[in-house]
Amino acid sequence: MKFCSQCGSRVELRIPEGDNLPRFVCNACDTIHYENPKIVAGCIPEWENQILLCKRAIEPRRGLWTLPAGFMENKETTAEAALRETLEEAKAQAEIIDLYALFNIPHISQVYLMFRARLLNLDFGPGAESLEVQLFHEHEIPWEDLAFPVIHETLKRYYAERKQQRYTLQIGNIRPTKTYKLTKP
Amino acid sequence: MKFCSQCGSRVELRIPEGDNLPRFVCNACDTIHYENPKIVAGCIPEWENQILLCKRAIEPRRGLWTLPAGFMENKETTAEAALRETLEEAKAQAEIIDLYALFNIPHISQVYLMFRARLLNLDFGPGAESLEVQLFHEHEIPWEDLAFPVIHETLKRYYAERKQQRYTLQIGNIRPTKTYKLTKP
Repeated sequence: MKFCSQCGSRVELRIPEGDNLPRFVCNACDTIHYENPKIVAGCIPEWENQILLCKRAIEPRRGLWTLPAGFMENKETTAEAALRETLEEAKAQAEIIDLYALFNIPHISQVYLMFRARLLNLDFGPGAESLEVQLFHEHEIPWEDLAFPVIHETLKRYYAERKQQRYTLQIGNIRPTKTYKLTKP
Repeated sequence: MKFCSQCGSRVELRIPEGDNLPRFVCNACDTIHYENPKIVAGCIPEWENQILLCKRAIEPRRGLWTLPAGFMENKETTAEAALRETLEEAKAQAEIIDLYALFNIPHISQVYLMFRARLLNLDFGPGAESLEVQLFHEHEIPWEDLAFPVIHETLKRYYAERKQQRYTLQIGNIRPTKTYKLTKP
């Protein structure tokens, strides 16, 4: 941020009076511009013993597999966001079963909320941001070709719990690591 | 938003190509300015059979009671945000027990994440945004003087579950209504 979105003047990065973190402040109109984490909402879309994954058509991680998920929009609920992303990325209609995971990714200021969801039919296909959309059995999951550590962690925990057919809310933090290796759990 | 925070030019509200929602777009530098929901993280701080509430020193709802909660900051986790707000607003040290509630408030684009937490000691007091901080037994909760519907809903569900001493994650949506009456559940 270089300019004030309210008046167009240059902003300054400083700690406002009564605050304890640096913010972009406009000295012309006194607006303080706060920046906050973003929610990424998505689904684990289930169909019998399979789940639906999307091969990314966009960067980052183009060509790698992911669960349908994306930035929550204003004026929607987290469940609505998760279902909208599933419709946009996988052209798939689903219904929410339950919230499955909350993952903080503090170094990029994101919070992932992943829902278990039930596919309503097999009428799916790649949306604009996907190259392919495909159902996978557990043994077919492309562990080495998953797009993000948070997707790997979500699926690892999901399949660990799936054996007991009893799912509990997963809460965790994803930390940066250059050695995070996406291998079969 | 009136001006581009990257180049200072006037922005225009329109649907960018390939998108389906209006965004503030800069025609000078092509930046698309997305706006997303904010997370409010907070605690239900427990001490024996009591919980800690704060009387607000700031608008909106100055003089009314609330749980310690506030906007999550970049680079922190949801639990860190909840504990930080508890420290800032109630000068109270606590530790997280578990995530208790996720409430969507879509009309104001907020997502509340409320944690049950254990007060570590009785060394608390009003922070800059509080007039008073006080422990309450259930029968002392000022139901008619709670600051926000989401706080009322959180506490209503908390005390309904508390009788069984078994807490389950609460997920709900808070809708706007002029008739939302903050009365004893």
